[in-house]
Amino acid sequence: MAQTLARPVANLIEILSRLPGVGPKTASRLTFYLLREPNGLAIALAEALAALSAGTVLCERCFNVAEASPCPICADPARDQQQICVVEEPMDVLAVERTDAFHGAYHVLHGALSPIDGIYPEKLKIAELVERVRTSQPAEVILATNPSLEGENTASYIYQQLQATGVPVTRLARGLPVGGDLEYTDEVTLSRALEGRRSM
Amino acid sequence: MAQTLARPVANLIEILSRLPGVGPKTASRLTFYLLREPNGLAIALAEALAALSAGTVLCERCFNVAEASPCPICADPARDQQQICVVEEPMDVLAVERTDAFHGAYHVLHGALSPIDGIYPEKLKIAELVERVRTSQPAEVILATNPSLEGENTASYIYQQLQATGVPVTRLARGLPVGGDLEYTDEVTLSRALEGRRSM
Repeated sequence: MAQTLARPVANLIEILSRLPGVGPKTASRLTFYLLREPNGLAIALAEALAALSAGTVLCERCFNVAEASPCPICADPARDQQQICVVEEPMDVLAVERTDAFHGAYHVLHGALSPIDGIYPEKLKIAELVERVRTSQPAEVILATNPSLEGENTASYIYQQLQATGVPVTRLARGLPVGGDLEYTDEVTLSRALEGRRSM
Repeated sequence: MAQTLARPVANLIEILSRLPGVGPKTASRLTFYLLREPNGLAIALAEALAALSAGTVLCERCFNVAEASPCPICADPARDQQQICVVEEPMDVLAVERTDAFHGAYHVLHGALSPIDGIYPEKLKIAELVERVRTSQPAEVILATNPSLEGENTASYIYQQLQATGVPVTRLARGLPVGGDLEYTDEVTLSRALEGRRSM
């Protein structure tokens, strides 16, 4: 049985199955697809993967993934460096940018606090944020961590750490998602929406 | 917006989304996972991909993917080279091997006939199969193409091509899947199961 699978094939299947959401079945489907694919997709993918770490750095100011440091957002004079939006991951920067509703700077934590998984404040870019806020004294820090247990804990922790700086700290609003349905909204979200109600 | 995504990141997302079943969202999730992953998974994956085409060949006899030609199955004197199991893809060899119920040789067609997709007999290893059967005169050719429209058409076509050789040609049994439920079996499968009924 083992001998029927060429080693490079078995090896790629094994490595692909380490990716999140990719099980052994998907991994072997992808591997055999890449074997069959005549247009050099496997080689293009290999090159793109090699370029990923070789061609990117973390911005020394906001810790977003970029081609150079400072990143284009930190280096852009048209962006309001007085507003710092704190997010967990580089992907979250993309999500906020897609709204086109924020024109300030970012700070990427690279995770959320989760002591059970060994993720303590030292593992995240929290000390760097506190130092950045202390020295640059921005007009506002917006905590845009996820509305999950870890995200909330991270936001609370950062809020405590920033209090000494005297800089105003805000948190993204919680409430009904646009296009949602009251009937199907979970109770926590609905009670947050009630708490956060605004006059018309 | 575009400037917020480093080019190597955007490039990897684009290439990953060309894989089957991987949309832009999954592609960017995988990309940011690979960026974050500290254990060099991206590099390991790049090397495995590069080794995939460099380290594999098609067996000159059965056209399975292998490290050398002939492949271990064709080279194995313990396997019955008088039985040839014809399958569509290298993955199907694995599926048959897992049953441990077949100890003969294989022939991988590398696809199934599908004129609408431009897959004509010349694109598959059908001429090679006919030549192999003609010269080696095996005891049996088992057509194990998929029980789909394309698989059935491919099996019929190959059967016609092999008739002149006089070699017995069989087809995998169609019937109720083990563990299945009569109530939920589609009518085509059920009528095939009735046709193929056997005395107890």
